[in-house]
Amino acid sequence: MRKYLLILITLSPFYLYAQQRPADLVYPLLDAANSRWFYFSSACRPFGMVNLFPDTNIGGEWDSGYRYAQDTILGFTHIHEWQLAGVSIMPVTFTDASLKSVVQNKGSHFSHKHETIKPGYHAVLLDRYSIRAELTASDRVGFHRYQFPTAGSAGVVFELGNHLGPSDILRGGFRQISDYEIQGYMVNGPTMRRPKECPVYFSTIFDKKIKSIVLYHDGILTHDIKQWDGTNGKILVILEDAANKPVLLKTGISFTSEAGAARNRTLEISHWDFDAIVKQADARWNELLSRIIIEGGTLQQQQRFYTDLWRSIQGRRIISDADGKYTDLTGKEKVIRQLPVGKDGKPQFNMYNSDAFWGAQWTLNTLWQLVYPEIAQEFCNSFLEYYKNGGLIPRGPSGGNDTFVMTGASSTPFFVSAWQKGIRGFDIKLAYEGLRKNHMPGGIMSKSGYEHNTMMGGGVQVYIEKGYVPYPLTQKQYGQHEDGAGMTLEYAYQDWTLAQLAKALHKENDYHYFLKRSTNYKNLYNPASRFIQPKDSLGKWKEPFDPLLYDNGYVEGNAAQFTWFAPHDLPGLFQLMGGNDTATARLNKQFELSAWHRFCNEHPEENPKFVSNKRTWLNYSNQPSMQVAYIFNYTGKPWLTQYWSREVVNQVFSGLSPYTGYSGEEDQGLMGTLSVLMKMGIFQMTGGCEEDPYYEIGSPLFDAVTIQLNPAFYPGKAFRIEAQHNSSMNRYIQSAILNNKPLSSFRFRHTDIVKGGSLILNMGDAPNHNWGIE
Amino acid sequence: MRKYLLILITLSPFYLYAQQRPADLVYPLLDAANSRWFYFSSACRPFGMVNLFPDTNIGGEWDSGYRYAQDTILGFTHIHEWQLAGVSIMPVTFTDASLKSVVQNKGSHFSHKHETIKPGYHAVLLDRYSIRAELTASDRVGFHRYQFPTAGSAGVVFELGNHLGPSDILRGGFRQISDYEIQGYMVNGPTMRRPKECPVYFSTIFDKKIKSIVLYHDGILTHDIKQWDGTNGKILVILEDAANKPVLLKTGISFTSEAGAARNRTLEISHWDFDAIVKQADARWNELLSRIIIEGGTLQQQQRFYTDLWRSIQGRRIISDADGKYTDLTGKEKVIRQLPVGKDGKPQFNMYNSDAFWGAQWTLNTLWQLVYPEIAQEFCNSFLEYYKNGGLIPRGPSGGNDTFVMTGASSTPFFVSAWQKGIRGFDIKLAYEGLRKNHMPGGIMSKSGYEHNTMMGGGVQVYIEKGYVPYPLTQKQYGQHEDGAGMTLEYAYQDWTLAQLAKALHKENDYHYFLKRSTNYKNLYNPASRFIQPKDSLGKWKEPFDPLLYDNGYVEGNAAQFTWFAPHDLPGLFQLMGGNDTATARLNKQFELSAWHRFCNEHPEENPKFVSNKRTWLNYSNQPSMQVAYIFNYTGKPWLTQYWSREVVNQVFSGLSPYTGYSGEEDQGLMGTLSVLMKMGIFQMTGGCEEDPYYEIGSPLFDAVTIQLNPAFYPGKAFRIEAQHNSSMNRYIQSAILNNKPLSSFRFRHTDIVKGGSLILNMGDAPNHNWGIE
Repeated sequence: MRKYLLILITLSPFYLYAQQRPADLVYPLLDAANSRWFYFSSACRPFGMVNLFPDTNIGGEWDSGYRYAQDTILGFTHIHEWQLAGVSIMPVTFTDASLKSVVQNKGSHFSHKHETIKPGYHAVLLDRYSIRAELTASDRVGFHRYQFPTAGSAGVVFELGNHLGPSDILRGGFRQISDYEIQGYMVNGPTMRRPKECPVYFSTIFDKKIKSIVLYHDGILTHDIKQWDGTNGKILVILEDAANKPVLLKTGISFTSEAGAARNRTLEISHWDFDAIVKQADARWNELLSRIIIEGGTLQQQQRFYTDLWRSIQGRRIISDADGKYTDLTGKEKVIRQLPVGKDGKPQFNMYNSDAFWGAQWTLNTLWQLVYPEIAQEFCNSFLEYYKNGGLIPRGPSGGNDTFVMTGASSTPFFVSAWQKGIRGFDIKLAYEGLRKNHMPGGIMSKSGYEHNTMMGGGVQVYIEKGYVPYPLTQKQYGQHEDGAGMTLEYAYQDWTLAQLAKALHKENDYHYFLKRSTNYKNLYNPASRFIQPKDSLGKWKEPFDPLLYDNGYVEGNAAQFTWFAPHDLPGLFQLMGGNDTATARLNKQFELSAWHRFCNEHPEENPKFVSNKRTWLNYSNQPSMQVAYIFNYTGKPWLTQYWSREVVNQVFSGLSPYTGYSGEEDQGLMGTLSVLMKMGIFQMTGGCEEDPYYEIGSPLFDAVTIQLNPAFYPGKAFRIEAQHNSSMNRYIQSAILNNKPLSSFRFRHTDIVKGGSLILNMGDAPNHNWGIE
Repeated sequence: MRKYLLILITLSPFYLYAQQRPADLVYPLLDAANSRWFYFSSACRPFGMVNLFPDTNIGGEWDSGYRYAQDTILGFTHIHEWQLAGVSIMPVTFTDASLKSVVQNKGSHFSHKHETIKPGYHAVLLDRYSIRAELTASDRVGFHRYQFPTAGSAGVVFELGNHLGPSDILRGGFRQISDYEIQGYMVNGPTMRRPKECPVYFSTIFDKKIKSIVLYHDGILTHDIKQWDGTNGKILVILEDAANKPVLLKTGISFTSEAGAARNRTLEISHWDFDAIVKQADARWNELLSRIIIEGGTLQQQQRFYTDLWRSIQGRRIISDADGKYTDLTGKEKVIRQLPVGKDGKPQFNMYNSDAFWGAQWTLNTLWQLVYPEIAQEFCNSFLEYYKNGGLIPRGPSGGNDTFVMTGASSTPFFVSAWQKGIRGFDIKLAYEGLRKNHMPGGIMSKSGYEHNTMMGGGVQVYIEKGYVPYPLTQKQYGQHEDGAGMTLEYAYQDWTLAQLAKALHKENDYHYFLKRSTNYKNLYNPASRFIQPKDSLGKWKEPFDPLLYDNGYVEGNAAQFTWFAPHDLPGLFQLMGGNDTATARLNKQFELSAWHRFCNEHPEENPKFVSNKRTWLNYSNQPSMQVAYIFNYTGKPWLTQYWSREVVNQVFSGLSPYTGYSGEEDQGLMGTLSVLMKMGIFQMTGGCEEDPYYEIGSPLFDAVTIQLNPAFYPGKAFRIEAQHNSSMNRYIQSAILNNKPLSSFRFRHTDIVKGGSLILNMGDAPNHNWGIE
């Protein structure tokens, strides 16, 4: 009888529930009411090419995919990716009378009551057909199990055309290969962001015999068809002997060819044991998630943490085949290339689709390079492959070509951080060449967002000449986000990171050259307003000045937010502002002013328009100002970092419902990773790009966090961050012990972590004004 | 150019906007997406009988009235009240061809873009008819101005039947009185809560001639009708000369008679100056809201504060006529009675409808008695009138009779608090008699929720015999909320408040009798579990025990929440628990565990079902545990009160959107008032029922709050609470000065306030463990 009280009083709330495996703590429905096309995830593996789940909305890139609040499933789609979609299929039952109407409009109501979702698995009951459908996946194969009802004929509809997520599906086709197999393709039409066609191939095998295939095209049904190619068609594959039995099917996917899809299928899943693949997927997720073990916190806090971590290792997805073949679309013609193969006969790395690393300096750089160094290394190699093919280290490649999404050379800090942390499994000479090219005219800093055909909108030439990117840049607009002040700030920071690499590689001239460029941000500091402001090509400040005006010179932000974007030279920035104390007061006031809207400029679960025109002093809904809570560490007031970073965690990254999550776009792991880092209490202001990079300490949410280090990269076994006497109120660090020695600084070094050890923080309810000052 | 920075750095954020009048800061759309029937308010006065606004849903008591997310206006309804509805009208345009379909289904789409809402005023464009409609009100009259388009005939539909909000409208009728006037009635059918019929009368005058009236009944239109009585009818009043001109109409409302409605109309608005009434309504709201003047905080914080305050002075509404006539429904027959009239010929007070004062001890008791003593006094007089008529001081009267909503003698603390604060304008002898009766068999403590016909479910007889109300009480259920543990806790606290009044009135025997009863809560403290638990009539604890199980012995709460319900004897409670430190640790842990769901057991803007079965350790969505943040003051840890009360304000009472607000039901000013008090930083644990009552200090949200005292009641002019160096982080009190003398206690006395003066708090970012200890 006393147990509840004991629980309440004596023990950590952690013990309110049996200790659970990290994979079991993931809550896949987080933010699912606000999904964009590729946000959701269930039947897939980490970075898997296949990201299979039911769509409730297939129209458009935003507000599509699995939208929790909608009640109709339109199909199970295998590719949900940055600018890519494909292979949407749906089991149906029908009679002769209903066949046509079912094929025309196959959507089925469903209820969340009859749905089970976990990493690697999705089960749902299709009410209209009384079909229980289960989905799982390997990296490149979607594995389906359908329990059909006793009544009606059973079949599976394959969409070969129409529109799907971001793409018009221009055309498609299929052929029946055997009594049990079909294969085919569909072509993602060009989008403004991905201007080249991108075909997706599939190869499907059933465990029940195909009875016949019906084509639906142009309003007409054609029975007993064996192959077809055309526009806007769909087929119904009718199965024999399916009633009241489980029907299994496996669909291999490839971007190279139908043969590639078939090979992926047979290489990855050679058997029919559905449950084994569910288990495998779960084990793989759990393995990666278990690299970080947390103790303490409430059940919900633990669930949210592992959900955030789960988000950080997906989104960006494999596009190469299991045998290492991939499609290179960087040139005029599509070319199939082969990745280098190791002694084991397997490709040494995969090729990836990826939204830009815009904001990765404060997120993925820290998490991947430390906890998943093999992933960081793989992405470096993948990006170098693009460089070899197309001549540029990319900024958000999709389907084998760059989309040039966002601005700047956002891959530079990622590479530099990897190198500085001792990740060596990529060609650094080639990398430096490519990165350097990106920072010069003709490189990616010449390109604005989605600027595919010209090298103008990035303005790096003017930046080199004048020391800033003017706003407006020219009369003409070449791409998106041609916001000179924002670009200048990014370039200056990225120049600094490249300078660090130049230094590490003993390229003294380059080091000095890029270091000098890295001070360019100062050219846009207006001493009159004391904000960073856009300046036109004649050197005139943009008038009238409005610190809260969104865009208009700032890339998805405003002056209030972007003025803090000099992470590589905070002392310099503070000096411009009039000293550390003025900087502290300004930023603290901005936090106070942002508290009412919970530090975000949108909250989809509330009224999306409520913060009108995104006029906010800070914004944790997006990347441009996500470092701000950690700036106080550098103004000499680390307790303000501790206070506000915890406040942001509480207010922004605490919800656990389909209606809340990231208060904007999660952006393929960026916001999830930010949440993970803030909850661990570590951060890297410079993106971890200096020699033996610093980690700065915030205010951990949990009693303890243990990072299991990857032995192939780091000598230590584990690093443990302990926050003693931690609580919502006890968010202030009183003292710290790093690897058994007192630590008085707010930061420590990469080598302090990777040799293994611990950071023990003593937390209290009051700021210790003497701790953490350098 | 420097102004933005100056704003940001030097000045309070208050100056980011011109100082606004309190009435202009009210945001009427708060929580409007989650409205229940009587929640919303626009065209009405404080406590006004008329609460006129457009309905978007008329079906049911919950989820009805003005629901922000719905797009169709179904009518402008004058009565939105606790268990009452009535007089729904709608301007329409029509042609001969469309007349019937318009009358049948008159709903019109509208858009929030073409809508203006402020205290006392509502304007909206009816898209279907292109009619711009404006609404305002005096206490008992709805005043409408419609701008009709040029095309079509113009008319106004009156609903005389059907269903409206909580009520079936049993029957209705009208008669045309003159070329410009009609009057009529409709009868609210009985509900489970209000079992007697309650008619509502109206008297409408137009400023345009009535051309003819069409009746719609039973699917048939009858033209040129002058009067009618029946079931489920509606009429269309067709107006002459209305096209493209403003049409005005005034509708007087009464619960006594059509003549009463006409009299209310002519007494309150004798002219046709619509704008003047809008101004008057606004001035009245502003006058009451200006009793509290705040400084500092963000614009949103100020808006939310005045919105909360605005909620605190409405909801409960006048039911008596302007001349003092009212309907007494306490007996078998309806009787029209007359309120006492003063020398000015006006009634000395009004009669009120009111949800129960269940929870008022921690909300209205403090706010009204201090800031609006004239309102507190009026409610005392109104409740005594019910006592004179029906023999019981009521618990949630509606339409002239008691509903017996909720449990206990919740009016007792309200009366006692008024008396102890020096409010003398009611008959204390009569009041004591009525209150005492309520605490004995045959009084309201004999009745459970909505127990209209028996005196069993309240269990006070058993409570007196055994020292607790058993759960279950008997085999039979007599009403709602027969939750013995919750009732015992309430009764014990209410007994203590009655004992205080007995003491003040020198009734020594009663004092000791009720004081002894007030320790009854201890009888349900189970030393084994250390929680308050339900016990059956044989003295056996209910098994199995589950501290989070909702209801089942607790009234809208659970053991975790209700165990803290001994506000009158916290030292006694702490002693049972094992001392102050154990109590502190337990409650602090409950707060920590409640942080993830933001201290509420529902969040309508998210997934309402997310906190499953309301299993929460604390709950700020409802009344039973709303005192908890202030308990730490009494455990000797006032800084925990400061921390958690601010945390609750931040997380629960900060939103300002139609989708957020009170995370549950606002309950006619209860939750709004709690928010006001917490933001002012004052609270009364005992409901202010001891002699010269205490106010305890929390952590004010604003830099300063000034209460303008009512000179008819209190000698001082104003009392000012200043929080110097206040900020989100600086939520801890370092030191305090009360009326120019250092204050080391966490509390002070009523006389310290009402003589006028100030409380100056010096705030800081760390707890001062030496301040506030007694």
